[in-house]
Amino acid sequence: MSEPKPTVLKIGGSIITDKTGELAARTREIDRLTEEIQRAKVQNLIVIHGGGSFGHPVAQKYRIKEGFKEERQKIGFAETHHVMTVLNGLLMDALVWHGVPAVSITPSSCIITKNGRIQNFEDESLKRFLKMGFLPVMYGDAVLDAELGFTVLSGDQLVSCIAAGLNAERIIMGVDVDGLYNDDPKANKTAKMLPHLTLSELKTLQSKLDAPSSNDVTGGMLGKITELIPAIEKGIPVQIVNGTKPDLVYKALRGEKVEGTLIEKE
Amino acid sequence: MSEPKPTVLKIGGSIITDKTGELAARTREIDRLTEEIQRAKVQNLIVIHGGGSFGHPVAQKYRIKEGFKEERQKIGFAETHHVMTVLNGLLMDALVWHGVPAVSITPSSCIITKNGRIQNFEDESLKRFLKMGFLPVMYGDAVLDAELGFTVLSGDQLVSCIAAGLNAERIIMGVDVDGLYNDDPKANKTAKMLPHLTLSELKTLQSKLDAPSSNDVTGGMLGKITELIPAIEKGIPVQIVNGTKPDLVYKALRGEKVEGTLIEKE
Repeated sequence: MSEPKPTVLKIGGSIITDKTGELAARTREIDRLTEEIQRAKVQNLIVIHGGGSFGHPVAQKYRIKEGFKEERQKIGFAETHHVMTVLNGLLMDALVWHGVPAVSITPSSCIITKNGRIQNFEDESLKRFLKMGFLPVMYGDAVLDAELGFTVLSGDQLVSCIAAGLNAERIIMGVDVDGLYNDDPKANKTAKMLPHLTLSELKTLQSKLDAPSSNDVTGGMLGKITELIPAIEKGIPVQIVNGTKPDLVYKALRGEKVEGTLIEKE
Repeated sequence: MSEPKPTVLKIGGSIITDKTGELAARTREIDRLTEEIQRAKVQNLIVIHGGGSFGHPVAQKYRIKEGFKEERQKIGFAETHHVMTVLNGLLMDALVWHGVPAVSITPSSCIITKNGRIQNFEDESLKRFLKMGFLPVMYGDAVLDAELGFTVLSGDQLVSCIAAGLNAERIIMGVDVDGLYNDDPKANKTAKMLPHLTLSELKTLQSKLDAPSSNDVTGGMLGKITELIPAIEKGIPVQIVNGTKPDLVYKALRGEKVEGTLIEKE
């Protein structure tokens, strides 16, 4: 029997943290989602989470994404990475507590970007952990950059890169809205949710969507969509679900029909 | 002006944790040592710490060092790595709080061993962080192993490997005793501390030293010494100091004469 192809699950920083605060973890959501992951028992699962109110405010304060320009940014880089490991630690703690053999893989320890794009990803550990039946967990992080000195690597770029690189079966994007809308649902109450999109429909929609909200240095929904295109082009379907609603991530992981937006190549 | 060669500082798990407990961090010692590191202002410093009462009890319980033998060890591996990241997080928090641009590099994310010995170490991030003026911090960890499936990598093996690989200026070993003795000072009160040793004297002494204490899966003082030999053979001096005594690590970092044992090739 051949191994099932990997599933990549993104957990948005807006689900597991309160983005209006600073270092404000939603531990109940972390507990609920890790229990859903445990219960779904998906083989070959990779989890990637965002930074929410941990990584973003510090990264913004020190302009980490723009690269190294002055000495004082260094402590900002150190702090950005450190707070991300703290958020990651909360998730790892919950996963291990639920009996999931999850192992955190630190992006800044094995990835170097070039002008913000992943240039060198030493993914040997990731592949081996996966093959042995562990659940690898990664996250958006402050990383070294061959051109900029350092920058911010978004969880979304990581999702797309890993899914495309490992030829994933599917991507599940857990976000804090019900799916993709034909307009920004937070600004326009008549915006309609789109249950299914092809890649060409997505590209048409893309130009209509709002700019990223200002406190997300890795881009909001527009950034997410743009990042996922390389994976979708490889034929990997993307299921967007509202991870703040109980059991939607569980159902998506189980492959059940679920409210949200499914994006497919054709 | 050429860059100074790196200094590798080991902080023993027995200093920053209470080895008689479980998950018992000595936060005051962590605060004191990180302040000493900050005050010493050493360029090109790499810090490596041990597991103490975090990594060792869990690793022992699940026999992680012996390699993968049964499914239930997987959660033990996950737990061992996780508790090490928690201990590391306490140190990183204190370093950042003291204004040190320290960045943790996760051993299990970039190192694969073979029969317990480092086989593949993707050290590009380590080198770049060092070159940019960051303080890289690593630690003993549960890692993947090409033969055993997984195992425990000691902080001491990491010290020796990194010092030899980066052609370090010196190694400073912060331990919980005053230096190397001609017998086990905890068992024999007439044991004498040796202020200076050559490599050949060390090898003679080695056979006389006691076996590692049972709750240190990576070996006690005997393990430490054996691990350091490859670095000493490359001409890298090793200064052993009592890290539980205030300012000894600071003085050693500053290159001041300090109570302890200095081991040199000749």
